[in-house]
Amino acid sequence: MKVVLLSGGGGGARFARGLADALSEDDLTIVGNVGDDLEILGLHVSPDLDSLLYTLAGFIDVERGWGRAGETWTALVSAARWGGEDWFRLGDLDIGLQLVRTEMLRAGVALSQVTAQLAEKASLNTHILPATDDRLRTHVQTSAGDFPFQEWFVGRAHEDDVYAVRYEGADDASPAPGVLEAIADAAAILVAPSNPYLSIGPILAVNEIRSALESRRARCVAVSPLVGGKAVSGPLDRMLSRMAGGTTPAHVTDCYLGVIDALVIDRADAPAAAKVELVATTTLMRDRDAARRLAEKALEVACG
Amino acid sequence: MKVVLLSGGGGGARFARGLADALSEDDLTIVGNVGDDLEILGLHVSPDLDSLLYTLAGFIDVERGWGRAGETWTALVSAARWGGEDWFRLGDLDIGLQLVRTEMLRAGVALSQVTAQLAEKASLNTHILPATDDRLRTHVQTSAGDFPFQEWFVGRAHEDDVYAVRYEGADDASPAPGVLEAIADAAAILVAPSNPYLSIGPILAVNEIRSALESRRARCVAVSPLVGGKAVSGPLDRMLSRMAGGTTPAHVTDCYLGVIDALVIDRADAPAAAKVELVATTTLMRDRDAARRLAEKALEVACG
Repeated sequence: MKVVLLSGGGGGARFARGLADALSEDDLTIVGNVGDDLEILGLHVSPDLDSLLYTLAGFIDVERGWGRAGETWTALVSAARWGGEDWFRLGDLDIGLQLVRTEMLRAGVALSQVTAQLAEKASLNTHILPATDDRLRTHVQTSAGDFPFQEWFVGRAHEDDVYAVRYEGADDASPAPGVLEAIADAAAILVAPSNPYLSIGPILAVNEIRSALESRRARCVAVSPLVGGKAVSGPLDRMLSRMAGGTTPAHVTDCYLGVIDALVIDRADAPAAAKVELVATTTLMRDRDAARRLAEKALEVACG
Repeated sequence: MKVVLLSGGGGGARFARGLADALSEDDLTIVGNVGDDLEILGLHVSPDLDSLLYTLAGFIDVERGWGRAGETWTALVSAARWGGEDWFRLGDLDIGLQLVRTEMLRAGVALSQVTAQLAEKASLNTHILPATDDRLRTHVQTSAGDFPFQEWFVGRAHEDDVYAVRYEGADDASPAPGVLEAIADAAAILVAPSNPYLSIGPILAVNEIRSALESRRARCVAVSPLVGGKAVSGPLDRMLSRMAGGTTPAHVTDCYLGVIDALVIDRADAPAAAKVELVATTTLMRDRDAARRLAEKALEVACG
């Protein structure tokens, strides 16, 4: 059964891990966010694609929630010593990957092809696709000014309140090869419990992806990233309150109107009403098994 | 007393260390070889400039003769795991510097300015200048074919016999800012005990540098890299035998005709005759003090 997952970073990657466990690996295509990509120290970093890759390959630092387990920081400390920036934390193991990606991109290889090589090197059968091979960057408008995503999220510890989000380059971005085909062929489309503005928004901002989802044949089911109206991690609850007026399931579904048929919510947020079907379950992914159970629930809602 | 040193990598850097000890640091300008620069893993590496920098800053791995002491290799091993090349050994500490250099070069900063920043970050007062900011690359023609320098030197462990050396880009290369001024202002010009073909040749291949040296006012003294007709390290003796017909002091001075006034040779190579003055001393730099004594001897020969 072919399934497509739209996903951001940490929480999305944990959900992807559960979904890959629930399916035959080869049946899963993940469309990953690239809006939080950045150039730092001359490296092209794709944090969300890497979180997917590292999580699915078992390389992720589970405690920290990002980057690689057993990471060391020698190169970054050295770079800072020579005048380089070190606010974005890249470990030595991680830099190994970033060097390979950056070299390939500069040689003209598309991000989707680079990502396929990296997945193959990690012996993954899950297909990981960037939403687009084109340049698409999330910017946030905050109380302290306008910032490229990572400068706000990491550089400023996402402390400034966000008033608006903008996806630079989205109007001119085409879906990466395979994205539209995967959506067309899918028996189910899922949206991971990721931040609608920062993780899924950039994917939906690619016009042809949004159109393909709006005219989908398969059902599309999102999983809410909120538990009891609070974000499990990150700034989503504050963003939803400010930008959508609240943190109920309806505030989440309104981010996805026209794109999803149902939202899986946590029992802590039920009962609730929204413009699409709501299904309550336990959404907190304490471990890999919990992620698999959540994925199975979402698949069940999608496939009936 | 202003002194200019033309230098390559390892041996040249050790001599530079001794020369810096013999002078007021600020009086020394080193013109470094860039013919062995390479792009690897998307990084612009300048091995000879780095050997100078690391040696003068006390960072060099003395045993190995290149790279940094206390180095680790995590990023390189990781890069290889993701499909990157690992035949050129870049450690984590070293990669920190290479990231900073590469990012600056890609932003349009000249190599000479990058090098000045790196020297300043290492608190060096010695002026390290690349021979040129332009692209200049040494290629060797060998029994096994034509190779870019590092592919032969490191990649093939410089085992193939060299028939000819070519300095790609030299005809169009201009001296880096400060090189001609330093030569004009110098009270003495020294050539380090480096490989004439691979280390000093690329510097002399920059036409304006050669012309400046040919019309020098100060005396120019080279130090022979041979001891008893053998290279202390590297392929020079084999190259000299094949390309110049022997490994006596005269074979060395012939590499520098028109450019030097005297050659400091090892006692093991004396007595000998050549087209320029020969001065015998102990040239093996067993330690920093020996390097200083050798530098003082070369200065004495240059200044009379």
